[in-house]
Amino acid sequence: MSSEHLDSDRVISILDRVFAGHNKPMGLHEPYFPGKEWDYVKECLDTRWVSSAGRFIERLEVDLADYLGVKRVVAVVNGTAGLHIALKLSGVETNDEVIVPSATFVATANAVAHCGAIPHFADIEPKTLGIDAARLGEYLRDATDIRDGKCFNRNTGRCIKAVVPMHTFGHPVDIEGVLEVCQRYNLIMIEDAAESIGSMYKGKQTGTFGKAGIFSFNGNKTITTGGGGAIATNDEKFANFARHITTTAKMPHPWEYRHDMVAYNYRMPNINAALGVAQLEQLDTFLKLKRSLAERYAKEFKNVSGLIFFTEPESTKSNYWLNTLVLNNEQSNMRDVLIKRGMESGYSMRPLWLPLHTLKMYQTCPRMDLNVAENLSMRLINIPSSVFLGKGHS
Amino acid sequence: MSSEHLDSDRVISILDRVFAGHNKPMGLHEPYFPGKEWDYVKECLDTRWVSSAGRFIERLEVDLADYLGVKRVVAVVNGTAGLHIALKLSGVETNDEVIVPSATFVATANAVAHCGAIPHFADIEPKTLGIDAARLGEYLRDATDIRDGKCFNRNTGRCIKAVVPMHTFGHPVDIEGVLEVCQRYNLIMIEDAAESIGSMYKGKQTGTFGKAGIFSFNGNKTITTGGGGAIATNDEKFANFARHITTTAKMPHPWEYRHDMVAYNYRMPNINAALGVAQLEQLDTFLKLKRSLAERYAKEFKNVSGLIFFTEPESTKSNYWLNTLVLNNEQSNMRDVLIKRGMESGYSMRPLWLPLHTLKMYQTCPRMDLNVAENLSMRLINIPSSVFLGKGHS
Repeated sequence: MSSEHLDSDRVISILDRVFAGHNKPMGLHEPYFPGKEWDYVKECLDTRWVSSAGRFIERLEVDLADYLGVKRVVAVVNGTAGLHIALKLSGVETNDEVIVPSATFVATANAVAHCGAIPHFADIEPKTLGIDAARLGEYLRDATDIRDGKCFNRNTGRCIKAVVPMHTFGHPVDIEGVLEVCQRYNLIMIEDAAESIGSMYKGKQTGTFGKAGIFSFNGNKTITTGGGGAIATNDEKFANFARHITTTAKMPHPWEYRHDMVAYNYRMPNINAALGVAQLEQLDTFLKLKRSLAERYAKEFKNVSGLIFFTEPESTKSNYWLNTLVLNNEQSNMRDVLIKRGMESGYSMRPLWLPLHTLKMYQTCPRMDLNVAENLSMRLINIPSSVFLGKGHS
Repeated sequence: MSSEHLDSDRVISILDRVFAGHNKPMGLHEPYFPGKEWDYVKECLDTRWVSSAGRFIERLEVDLADYLGVKRVVAVVNGTAGLHIALKLSGVETNDEVIVPSATFVATANAVAHCGAIPHFADIEPKTLGIDAARLGEYLRDATDIRDGKCFNRNTGRCIKAVVPMHTFGHPVDIEGVLEVCQRYNLIMIEDAAESIGSMYKGKQTGTFGKAGIFSFNGNKTITTGGGGAIATNDEKFANFARHITTTAKMPHPWEYRHDMVAYNYRMPNINAALGVAQLEQLDTFLKLKRSLAERYAKEFKNVSGLIFFTEPESTKSNYWLNTLVLNNEQSNMRDVLIKRGMESGYSMRPLWLPLHTLKMYQTCPRMDLNVAENLSMRLINIPSSVFLGKGHS
């Protein structure tokens, strides 16, 4: 059908119209510092509180907990470290399995491997781009046994300890569906909300549904601390333990250096937290700008043949971290053509990550059928999404 | 002998004289930003290059490699991460053993544990506060077998892969002695130079003698990046591998996300590197100030009964990161008395770390006789050592 043909010139001309007057080349998601970033960072330098203690770390933790509506937040050095610790504190040990989507950034699986455990890959569903809870439930029914209240992979004999749903590009996964599966199979849920700060599922913040939720403040995220992350939880004991094990497990004492377990140096420095406090103050403004850009994209791409612009799943409010075009099935051979044309024209574009089960270190890991992840990986394209690109569209 | 009595009033009165006019309370080692710290950090914010790429990361790596006289430096998120990666790339695997001093910060042993390996504790010598090479050599002669070119612990049957000498408080260890033992027993040497940036052993920078040297830029170090560290090496392949595995092992490609091994998110953010570049520009000035303070301390404490001021070992030039009083044996019961008096008077003081083999998670680890570490842990006291405290003593 010629009417279905994807015209890459048309896509580029839309971007040219949407971003008339903007500088190019344009990154996929660049930082934006219109608030008190410099004031707070300068305060760190002036007071010399730049390192692992200081008022901004504590303030970032309190402010983010307030924003999310959780009891506690522990700031860490990045999202990977946050996931590693959350899984470890959930009892994930050497030779356990942890269910993660195959369609996610590699850090989700790496954090499992850092516990000595094995990623077990779940498929995603087209309407959320996150774990397909219904199909995961069916798969676990056939592939696992419950013994002594624990879930065992019938094939490998290993214990499956946890599930890590990830909110892809900021779009909330079917978190209630995943939580129901976790309850049915006695699995702990750790939410990978690295991409979804500010996104809501039925009016509640992502990252607040499981035992813990992990956020990332990497430079390409909606708000950034340069490098950083956070663990959010309603479990005070979990939070205290996370704080302890991310700060070398030093026992409180005015001078003695006594540490009571093998631990990590995963604390976010105060200078990075200063940036984070200033960014968090503007998160709601940023989210409005991102929504404004997404709405503009939705309007502009509405009648373009061969693709659709991905919009937030029902009952959710996405932060639209990375805006996404979904090519029709028969247009998947156009993916790289369009990405190249975009880059030549000054617009950063990116496909979905290679499904993790195709990477050589994870090829032998257990998995359910992953045909949706495989299919979508050929059809998704992220397009420029920086907060400041949202200005002037309302 | 009453002439040997340690008079804590006298120690405090010396500090009062040395630091007349300084603000109190006084930390043990506080950051100092008299250079281009603001300019460079502000440049990061203005250009929005705050995260995992940017000119300051590269510049810090090049500038530090130049300073040290090594081929390559890889900037990482902190010293612990640097040690972890250096050990991993040296082939340290689950159930191997790695020799570390018992008298070191806990991170040295934690990095071994993060590889799944077991710390094997070595004693230190009084004249360097670092590993006693002669005694380590004798111990290994009796405690190990060499088979197929590998060194095996005769007791545990495990392979000993590496030795991590640490330059305590900046004072160079007998690095040639340790290196000779490593060569004799086919052990890789990774230098823990977290505390010794700028310190020299026979005219050559510490951190440049082994397969790799690790530096820390934590807030309490001679120069700081808030939180950060670096791996220095003369082995290009090792450096390339370190870079790869600390940055999620992503293969170069304009848009594809292909990663070829389980890897880490250990890259130093650019905003932290900006601070580091500015600090490194002043390192020689800082070292002069630190030496000036150490010389003042040496003079003031020369005739104080019951203690000596620790001075750099023969053939070395120490950065005097943390200045150290060594109480006479019979004064060890005065250690905590003096520390408390110091703190009450506004001077941070600190004993040696508890020897790591006494911490509960490392109590069952293999070890040589550790009587020197145990003895010195009761007799050492660090006293205020910040760079800026060196002003006005020359």
